[in-house]
Amino acid sequence: MPSDADFAQFAEDARQRVEGVLGQLLPPSDCLPARLHQAMRYSTLGGGKRLRPLLVYATGHVLEAAPALLDRPACAVELIHAYSLVHDDLPAMDDDDLRRGQPTCHKQYDEATAILAGDALQALAFQVLADDWELDAALRLRMVAALALAAGSRGMVGGQAIDLAAVGHTLSLPALESMHIHKTGMLIRASVQLGALAAGVAAGEVHERLLHYADNIGLAFQVQDDILDEEGETAVMGKQNGADRARNKPSYVSLLGLAEAKALARRLCDDALAALADFDGRADHLRALAHLIVERRQ
Amino acid sequence: MPSDADFAQFAEDARQRVEGVLGQLLPPSDCLPARLHQAMRYSTLGGGKRLRPLLVYATGHVLEAAPALLDRPACAVELIHAYSLVHDDLPAMDDDDLRRGQPTCHKQYDEATAILAGDALQALAFQVLADDWELDAALRLRMVAALALAAGSRGMVGGQAIDLAAVGHTLSLPALESMHIHKTGMLIRASVQLGALAAGVAAGEVHERLLHYADNIGLAFQVQDDILDEEGETAVMGKQNGADRARNKPSYVSLLGLAEAKALARRLCDDALAALADFDGRADHLRALAHLIVERRQ
Repeated sequence: MPSDADFAQFAEDARQRVEGVLGQLLPPSDCLPARLHQAMRYSTLGGGKRLRPLLVYATGHVLEAAPALLDRPACAVELIHAYSLVHDDLPAMDDDDLRRGQPTCHKQYDEATAILAGDALQALAFQVLADDWELDAALRLRMVAALALAAGSRGMVGGQAIDLAAVGHTLSLPALESMHIHKTGMLIRASVQLGALAAGVAAGEVHERLLHYADNIGLAFQVQDDILDEEGETAVMGKQNGADRARNKPSYVSLLGLAEAKALARRLCDDALAALADFDGRADHLRALAHLIVERRQ
Repeated sequence: MPSDADFAQFAEDARQRVEGVLGQLLPPSDCLPARLHQAMRYSTLGGGKRLRPLLVYATGHVLEAAPALLDRPACAVELIHAYSLVHDDLPAMDDDDLRRGQPTCHKQYDEATAILAGDALQALAFQVLADDWELDAALRLRMVAALALAAGSRGMVGGQAIDLAAVGHTLSLPALESMHIHKTGMLIRASVQLGALAAGVAAGEVHERLLHYADNIGLAFQVQDDILDEEGETAVMGKQNGADRARNKPSYVSLLGLAEAKALARRLCDDALAALADFDGRADHLRALAHLIVERRQ
């Protein structure tokens, strides 16, 4: 069984790998229109946990997909995630000035550039999957379909719309869960799906178990986010703590209290691990990721 | 040879067809999040010339593609076009209150909803191509790649970035042309490409001629837009005339004068027709479209 050190090495390798490939797939900073391309690179290459690419690589690892087949799916999910952060930070949306301790895209550049950079990052995500590379066309096409569904109005964008409409309102626990399943859960699910598709696994029991794992860590991630928003320090988080509460946004902590929210995060993590029970040591990176999600401090 | 009446009937059939399929592919207005889906439908089904879908159908007609194979490509290009209008109209971009004589999306709904509706329309465009339908997977994947390239930072979004940066500056004629090739030309080219791909034509001389046609009508469309902006009446255009000039936006009319701009539009139309010289009567709808573009009053 791999040690924590093995996972740390795996995660570091995966991060370097996805950063490297993203750097190649994003248009160069001096390519016209330069300011747009700079904003795209600024918003994508400026750090981040790379959770979604890690899920792609770790899922591919379980199913013994060649790492080279995982690079483009890993980049595609990260490009969608990066674009969503740029648009979520806009003044008309969450109106955030800081992201990962740095000025948000519209602060560093301007609002129009941030809107366009997000738009172009989304298009690039689909281009990266559709452009010619070595994976079978039917599998690549399924990746495009899965990512588009997860990113669209019945997925991430729909979740953001529900989130914005919920500010200042009280949500029930099921309504809060539904919002998070859309806003972040479906892209996390798509990350695992794309990793499985790269290995040619598009259906069946193994596929189902991996998706069950993904759905549980997706929710666990959000519960932990709410816990950190309550507990975290601005210096560690790179954004202001209590920010969601200050905006009167519904959260697991406001609905359940801190202790219950922590118990829920642990339960979701356990369910995610249970979905992997029949997998061998190749799934240890996925297991480590589940632990990481509920133990992270930022 | 088909008459003008034949083309009018063809165009009317194509418009009804694409409106009908768009209506089915867009999530219903009562599907949650309802406001987002209403905004998506408002921005897509609210009329418009449907030039890009017409190009898909007319190109497919030349190559004898079954009309059913053209519906999704026609919807995909229109969804990208619709999303781009929603984002272009935003206060941080062109800040327009009217579009086709109706309130723009952010005026009818709100800015956040307009940003999200545009984002979701873009995702839907790729989903519509990637979802399972009867066309060969490799061809559908080429459609996704062509559309993503045309929509992204090296295509439409890049053109919009160049356009915004040019406000208040003097552009040379080649710089103005480059801006338009990106901003509108590449999506018009992609419309013709997708129509050809639906017929299995992905390369070769016929493909090249069709693209040459597309590039010329794409520019002709922009030149005519500038002419109409100078000459058009607000009531006919559905937006204020002289609006671009008032913003000090560079245009063919400001660079060439009205008479020269009109001569250029006619020349581009002639070049488009010349590219079709070896095609038979099946290309008459494309020919009629070229005429329509330079003769339109709105």
